[in-house]
Amino acid sequence: MPIIEVNMLEGRSHEAKATLVKAITDAVVTAIAVPPDSVRIIIRDMAFEDYAVAGVLKKMPPQSAS
Amino acid sequence: MPIIEVNMLEGRSHEAKATLVKAITDAVVTAIAVPPDSVRIIIRDMAFEDYAVAGVLKKMPPQSAS
Amino acid sequence: MPIIEVNMLEGRSHEAKATLVKAITDAVVTAIAVPPDSVRIIIRDMAFEDYAVAGVLKKMPPQSAS
Amino acid sequence: MPIIEVNMLEGRSHEAKATLVKAITDAVVTAIAVPPDSVRIIIRDMAFEDYAVAGVLKKMPPQSAS
Amino acid sequence: MPIIEVNMLEGRSHEAKATLVKAITDAVVTAIAVPPDSVRIIIRDMAFEDYAVAGVLKKMPPQSAS
Amino acid sequence: MPIIEVNMLEGRSHEAKATLVKAITDAVVTAIAVPPDSVRIIIRDMAFEDYAVAGVLKKMPPQSAS
Repeated sequence: MPIIEVNMLEGRSHEAKATLVKAITDAVVTAIAVPPDSVRIIIRDMAFEDYAVAGVLKKMPPQSAS
Repeated sequence: MPIIEVNMLEGRSHEAKATLVKAITDAVVTAIAVPPDSVRIIIRDMAFEDYAVAGVLKKMPPQSAS
Repeated sequence: MPIIEVNMLEGRSHEAKATLVKAITDAVVTAIAVPPDSVRIIIRDMAFEDYAVAGVLKKMPPQSAS
Repeated sequence: MPIIEVNMLEGRSHEAKATLVKAITDAVVTAIAVPPDSVRIIIRDMAFEDYAVAGVLKKMPPQSAS
Repeated sequence: MPIIEVNMLEGRSHEAKATLVKAITDAVVTAIAVPPDSVRIIIRDMAFEDYAVAGVLKKMPPQSAS
Repeated sequence: MPIIEVNMLEGRSHEAKATLVKAITDAVVTAIAVPPDSVRIIIRDMAFEDYAVAGVLKKMPPQSAS
């Protein structure tokens, strides 16, 4: 504990993910005084076509020409 | 807010997802009077082999012969 | 299927929740042509002190006077 | 109900998943006396590079040389 | 790993939860050969008014007399 | 985006949660260069009787004397 889930749009590099989980873990360890070993992080990459704000997908289907 | 997660079996087209997030967002905006911008939707496609009912995994629908 | 999770801030009435799940279910049934019985919705009420945007909780702890 | 989500590292075979969902379902049915039909399980495969303990991402196990 | 989340309707006793997590853990350990220590389970109790099937909450608001 | 869910055992103070979400947000903003406004965090407090490792709840039911 804690178990942390990070939902973010796809496309981050392996290096960016490595930096991210290290930074979050350090932040949690410092903020609430838990041992680093207890911090688990799951990254969930989301496709652009699987995330919507205000009813619109981040990547819309191409329009047919007319 | 709200943040909505939709788990569904894989295979819907991009157009179907676009229609779905628009419909859900409109429903939420009307039902509980929040601004459209505040509605975020995450779609999680599930592979057929990753979903089980009564202890049995779903199977991919058979392809139509041709 | 689908299984839908709605995260929203606490305080909606029972009637509002009933209206909300009906509206979302109708939207899903119409948008992607699934039977109503297959639509399951889990509402997760969040306390204001358990949701943050930009690093700030929706309800912050009282400040000590100085 | 219940709806169960299993997060595990990628790489299990279809047979292993089939065995797993059957075993969990039987366990739940026996332990809390619900009908098998009511038990739904979602498996979420995680890439090794999407899971971290103590701030370090898991690595793909090395392939044995041959 | 694995990390398992069990969503179920509120009202199970403490004993039933203890039996449930033991049974699921044993099932997982046997089915996919992971060490017991690696199995983490989160139980999420849901209020009856926070779960809907077919657009109807498990516990509906009382009707006004007429 | 990103949307982050933090599952942790109940009992943290309001101040600790405020410190935690600020620290995580700063970490994410620095690590992957997203604007602070885009970072949303949901804290999920878990009761000790709702979390198990190795098949044992963090708080077990009292044993009957013998």
